[in-house]
Amino acid sequence: MGPRELGLPMQVAAPEPGELPAAVTIWEVGPRDGLQNEKQAVPVEVKLEFLDRLADAGLPVLEATSFVRPEWVPQLADAAELLAGLKRVPGIRYPVLVPNAKGLDRALESQVRDIAIFASATETFTRRNLNRGLDEQFAMFDPVVRRAVGEGLSVRGYISMCFGDPWEGAVPVEQVVSVGKRLLEMGCDQLSLGDTIGVATPGHVSALLRGFVAAGIGVDRLAVHFHDTYGQALSNTFAALRHGVSTVDSSAGGLGGCPYAKSATGNLATEDLVWMLEGLGIKHGVDLGKLVETSVWMAERLGRPSPSRVVKALSS
Amino acid sequence: MGPRELGLPMQVAAPEPGELPAAVTIWEVGPRDGLQNEKQAVPVEVKLEFLDRLADAGLPVLEATSFVRPEWVPQLADAAELLAGLKRVPGIRYPVLVPNAKGLDRALESQVRDIAIFASATETFTRRNLNRGLDEQFAMFDPVVRRAVGEGLSVRGYISMCFGDPWEGAVPVEQVVSVGKRLLEMGCDQLSLGDTIGVATPGHVSALLRGFVAAGIGVDRLAVHFHDTYGQALSNTFAALRHGVSTVDSSAGGLGGCPYAKSATGNLATEDLVWMLEGLGIKHGVDLGKLVETSVWMAERLGRPSPSRVVKALSS
Repeated sequence: MGPRELGLPMQVAAPEPGELPAAVTIWEVGPRDGLQNEKQAVPVEVKLEFLDRLADAGLPVLEATSFVRPEWVPQLADAAELLAGLKRVPGIRYPVLVPNAKGLDRALESQVRDIAIFASATETFTRRNLNRGLDEQFAMFDPVVRRAVGEGLSVRGYISMCFGDPWEGAVPVEQVVSVGKRLLEMGCDQLSLGDTIGVATPGHVSALLRGFVAAGIGVDRLAVHFHDTYGQALSNTFAALRHGVSTVDSSAGGLGGCPYAKSATGNLATEDLVWMLEGLGIKHGVDLGKLVETSVWMAERLGRPSPSRVVKALSS
Repeated sequence: MGPRELGLPMQVAAPEPGELPAAVTIWEVGPRDGLQNEKQAVPVEVKLEFLDRLADAGLPVLEATSFVRPEWVPQLADAAELLAGLKRVPGIRYPVLVPNAKGLDRALESQVRDIAIFASATETFTRRNLNRGLDEQFAMFDPVVRRAVGEGLSVRGYISMCFGDPWEGAVPVEQVVSVGKRLLEMGCDQLSLGDTIGVATPGHVSALLRGFVAAGIGVDRLAVHFHDTYGQALSNTFAALRHGVSTVDSSAGGLGGCPYAKSATGNLATEDLVWMLEGLGIKHGVDLGKLVETSVWMAERLGRPSPSRVVKALSS
């Protein structure tokens, strides 16, 4: 079912040596970022089977759920139940989104070892998403991150609206770098740079990554999170790989988006990413056939086809 | 309706100077490559309005139709009638696909000034598409190209299956370069390198372009033609731009594919290409708002939505 079974050896040639990472860690966000945007609630047993299947397909990081308030994201109100039922496969990480101190309490009760917080690069989006200003968000995250680090957890800092913001337009590179620096100083070990509304193009990606490097933050601390709203997600990922970024967020079958931002549809599909990585000769560890089967299975559960081009091509 | 009207100045930053072309010529293939794959025949008046709208949107090259035998491609059986009714806008080129000597006669009768021939890089596809072998195709094209050049026409040589072939697998770079060389020696002024089944990835694109350059063929003679079957078309285009390629084929709204090849769906959508070029600060001359309106209008005529992400995002 994958490129090899199609008889097409995709690893025809990699670009100039040293330009691209030898291996990429795919940070699978489908179970959290994908399913939180579904209108209907997905039963917890379906979510658990989804996670099991993704683990079996070889994905090394599965963002499992979120402890955000159930009245905000009812689709993930079953977080504790899900984590209680989760078969944790050794070697696989199951990070959980944690919005505040109470969320961290709940995550710790559920034996979570990796958390993520969700910051923003713009004033307007911070106000709309967190009901406070750009600078005030740090006061909210600080005790959470410090305590999590004290408990030995790894903490990822998402930064949304890193490129464009629907209210503010283009977001200055320095503003994003400044937010990232504060999150790292607080104790985050990785930043995920999000193009929440999908407007970025490869030159902008290069400029942002150069901005981080110039500020002394290495690409080993950076992940990228692109949305395919305008079809740019994979090109932007390729641009980031050329800068040495080796952690890429994507969503099985292209599930999800962002419920708070206009036009914010479509995470990068993990399958489309895997196809490119395979062709570039970059190690990823994923069984594409199993992954496509999983996305087809989930699409049946959700009652609509996957937007992933690879899923469409390989399942038709 | 375009990025500017959305309040998002997309030209935030271009990559390293000198790495990308300053301007790209978009070779719009929707009226020919798109419509030849439609199941229902599109009325000639609709085709003519489509061409007028594309011209008004600023596209500099509109591949208008094909003089292939009507029994093979009934969708374009109205080629002569279309060309008779076409309002040729000064400064815009309207190339026409010409399969053989008879097709060239008809093209000349219709005052065509730019033609294209359709070669293949693989034995199997040549046999299936032209009913002759890889080497024999040149004997077929040679008199057509020489006569066209003698008449002062420009001649583009398409090469299909430049990356993978569904029967032969990965296609060796030398084989594609060899076909390209022969077409140029024959008199073609430009080659369009086609990923007919959409399997290429950026490293393979780099390898092929390096192969041409090593053989003494400059990127100014090369265009790229990617299909989005596996979601790779725009990343591959970005890779080609980095090598200095400055002519890119695409199809308004992502219309079309290839009727002879399995899984060959989806030309690169012109809108998604324009979004990237705009963001990279590369001149393209297209009014994105008018183009999206045209694709929405055509989608209504065809009774199904455009697969272009940009068209979806901007028209929803």
